[in-house]
Parts: sequence; structure tokens; C-alpha cells
Amino acid sequence: MMLITGGARSGKSRFAEQIAEKRGGDVLYIATSAVTDAEMAERIRFHQQQRPAHWHTFERHRDLADVVRLKQAEFPTIVIECITTLITNLLFDMDGEADPEAMDFIAIEQHILAQITDLTDAAQHCESEVILVTNEVGMGIVPDNLLSRRFRDIAGRVNQQLAAAADEVYLVVSGIPVPVKTSA
Amino acid sequence: MMLITGGARSGKSRFAEQIAEKRGGDVLYIATSAVTDAEMAERIRFHQQQRPAHWHTFERHRDLADVVRLKQAEFPTIVIECITTLITNLLFDMDGEADPEAMDFIAIEQHILAQITDLTDAAQHCESEVILVTNEVGMGIVPDNLLSRRFRDIAGRVNQQLAAAADEVYLVVSGIPVPVKTSA
Amino acid sequence: MMLITGGARSGKSRFAEQIAEKRGGDVLYIATSAVTDAEMAERIRFHQQQRPAHWHTFERHRDLADVVRLKQAEFPTIVIECITTLITNLLFDMDGEADPEAMDFIAIEQHILAQITDLTDAAQHCESEVILVTNEVGMGIVPDNLLSRRFRDIAGRVNQQLAAAADEVYLVVSGIPVPVKTSA
Repeated sequence: MMLITGGARSGKSRFAEQIAEKRGGDVLYIATSAVTDAEMAERIRFHQQQRPAHWHTFERHRDLADVVRLKQAEFPTIVIECITTLITNLLFDMDGEADPEAMDFIAIEQHILAQITDLTDAAQHCESEVILVTNEVGMGIVPDNLLSRRFRDIAGRVNQQLAAAADEVYLVVSGIPVPVKTSA
Repeated sequence: MMLITGGARSGKSRFAEQIAEKRGGDVLYIATSAVTDAEMAERIRFHQQQRPAHWHTFERHRDLADVVRLKQAEFPTIVIECITTLITNLLFDMDGEADPEAMDFIAIEQHILAQITDLTDAAQHCESEVILVTNEVGMGIVPDNLLSRRFRDIAGRVNQQLAAAADEVYLVVSGIPVPVKTSA
Repeated sequence: MMLITGGARSGKSRFAEQIAEKRGGDVLYIATSAVTDAEMAERIRFHQQQRPAHWHTFERHRDLADVVRLKQAEFPTIVIECITTLITNLLFDMDGEADPEAMDFIAIEQHILAQITDLTDAAQHCESEVILVTNEVGMGIVPDNLLSRRFRDIAGRVNQQLAAAADEVYLVVSGIPVPVKTSA
């Protein structure tokens, strides 16, 4: 299991795709983005064009552990992109219409961390190499709205949990992967 | 003297606490947060529950150098958490009610850097190992309000000053400490 | 060709200047900032005072490749500071008055990346060592306005392109340069 983190447009995805490509064999690409507007649709289309045509793309907005368990026999490499979008999905699935002041962020975080535990468990005990792409979102100024603050709290804790479970962790800076945790 | 930096929820505090725990002996934990709202009170309570019960917690919102000088004989390890909150305290102590447009940021920065110089001087010349926790706040988009821009300028310069004085500096990424400056 | 990246007030500029100073000989310093307000004027003045008096400062807001080609024979070291401001200039030169919703960001990005390709081509094939300073802007929360989101997308891709072309890349954290890419 490998975790690739970095800022927006840092080249995280390309690095994940290079590693998957280098491993050879069929690649299952799990896209977590729910298409919610034209900007996102355009971005998803752009990313799809970047990926090799023979990759198998699977859209899944939650319960990723099930997909990993189900597909591991078939695909030697599974790329999940990205965890930050998955957190957004889970956040809004649960309580999306609510006033942020009224949201129960403790329950939301527990629910999300449980999903992540399930995913890391599946990733650690499957035959495939699972490559997860996530985002660094906590290195700017404290956001002035509550929802953003809670989101980055949850995203930070999720990243910690994933990195603890991963055999290798890379921080991608300006397209260059910096090893943060290495196996053996 | 050791500096631990990283984004929000990156695992900085836990790493600081692990190091302090590993060193053995009594630990003085200096918390810089002034409780200003329910969100912060909850966060402080959460952090206190994470810390070993035998740690000595001391709340101090400014003049940390005095505490370090006074307590060094008693505690082999002093953890200060966190510098970013200390800067916020100093910023608002001086000019908190003012219109940001009217604040004298040059004087404020000089005052804050002088406090930091005093603190690093105390940390470098005391018997305790002083472990400082700070935040990366400058890796996002330029904030659209003046106060945030000035705050991140000051926070960045303070981090530079602390890192220059420290024997060791770590950047914590997804819970994994990345050595940035190492002693010897 | 060397790329120095980092957050706001991380000490990027000082590191670039130390390297230029250490190399010896005349230094051409290309400042990309267009002075647009008092805050920026003050910041530029502050930075000028930090630089050695014998450096040659040249203000240029676009077409930097031409300057590099023209001046390479004269200056063994050329410092360009900074790329992020250059992107801002190019963004606003093209479409500055427009409603962000109406801006053609695909064309803008292509235009900017072409300018960067021209610059890296000049930097790689000139006699001078070219040191470029840029910013990490993508490690915070997704900005809530479209222009900022597009800006950080472009800035991220520009940084990737520069780092791919550079012989050495450093990420400056709290004033300490962390090697990200090293030559041989």
C-alpha cells in the first residue's frame, strides 16, 4: 500500500500513474469524484484523457473497501484518486444540506475514519498493490469558515491514518516525489 | 532545542509528545492557547485527554522565556505548543481591537520577533530540552484580507528565526516526521 | 538552472541570494513584481534593502527569456524572483479586467506555459546559472473563488514544468533548504 500526497496541481496523479504503469499488468483506477458542476466535469475529462486507454476506470463515491476486496484478484494494481474527494463525498452524504453550525462533526469524523480503517484494512490484506492519492490541505492560513476548518481537520487525521498504514509515503513537490516513509 | 513544524492536523503535537515521552522524566507542557470560544475549548480538552496524565500543564499566553528560565531546573523536557497561537496572542494583545488598516505591523513584528529572540535565547541556554511546535501557514493562496497576509508574514519570519536557532527541525507530513535540519 | 520553492516568508529569497552571493561575480536580479499598491511598494523596498548593493536589479514583468538570452554573457548568475508574480502579471495582462467567469483559462494557461517553456529553454542553454524563485500555493484549502482556483492550478503546473527542467530543486521550510531534486 502506497500513499501519495501533495498540493493541488503538484503532479501527484501523474506520479501515481507512472508507478502503476511501471508495475505492468492491468490497472484499476477508482475515481472518487462525484460530478457536481461543469468545472469538475471538465477536470475529470482532462484527467481521463491523460490516463492510458487500457486502464479500467471505475467511479465510486464511497465504500471503496468493498471494491478493493472484490477486484483484487483481477488487478495487480489499484489506484484510488483521490481521498480528499472521498472525504468531501462522505461529509456531504451525511449532512450536506445542513447548516455547518448544526453539523455533528464528531460523529461525521468517526464515520469517515471508520470508512478509512475499512479501506486500509482491505488495502493491507489484498493481493493488489493499492496506490492512494491524497491532498495536503493544512499548510495555509486557518480558513475563516467552520466547514472548511472541520474539513481540513478531518482530512489531516485521515492522511495520518493512511500514512501510518502505508508501506511507502511520498510528498510530491513541483512534480518531484519526495520520499517521506520508505519500506524496509 | 527542537522545532517541529507542519500543517494543521499533521500529527505535529503527537510527534512532539512521543519525543518528550521517550526522553523520560517529568515533562512541562506549556499551552499557549487563550480560550476564546467553544470550538477552541473543545479542541484544548481533546488535546489534554491525549497527553499522559503525569505531564505538568502550564497555560501561558506570553513571556514564555521567563517560564523556560524558571522551570528548567525542574523539568528535563519542556514542550511549547504552539508558537502560531503565541503569535496570534501577541498580535491581539497589542492591537486586537483596531482596524487592521490602522495597525502598525512593523512595530508589531519587531515586538513579536523580540519575544521570540528572548525565547530562543532561554531555550538555547537552559538545562532542559525545549521542543517547540509551530505551523506551516504560508503554502496556500495569498489570503484576501490584510490581517491574514500580515499574520502569515510574521509567522513565516518567526519560523525562520526558530529554525535557525534550533538544533533539529522536523516537518511533519501526514503524521510522518521529515528531518529538515539535523544536529551533528 | 536551479528552482527554489517554498511558502510565503519561508526564506526562499534569502536562500537564492546566498547561493548567488557564494557563486561570486556579478549578479543580475530580475524582479517580476509590478508595483500595484502601497503594500507591494513597501515589500519591494524592503527586499531591495536586503540585497547586496552591487547587484544589478532589472524590473521585468514578462518576456523574461529575452532578458536571460541578452544578459547571459555579462552575468554569471541570474536570479529571477519570482515566478508566481510573473504568472499573476501574465494572467492580468491578458484578461485582467474581465469577469473571471468569462475568462478563457485554457488559452491563458497555454500562453503562460509557452512563456515558461521559452524561459526554461533560455535558462538551460545560456552561460549563466539561472536561479528561479517560486511559491508553493496549493497546500491549503480549495479557494472559494474561481480566479484563485485557476491561478493555483496554473501555478502548480508551471512549478512542475520548471522543476522538470531544473538541475536542482529545493523546498525551503522555515528558512532551511530541503533538497527535492539534486544534480547527479
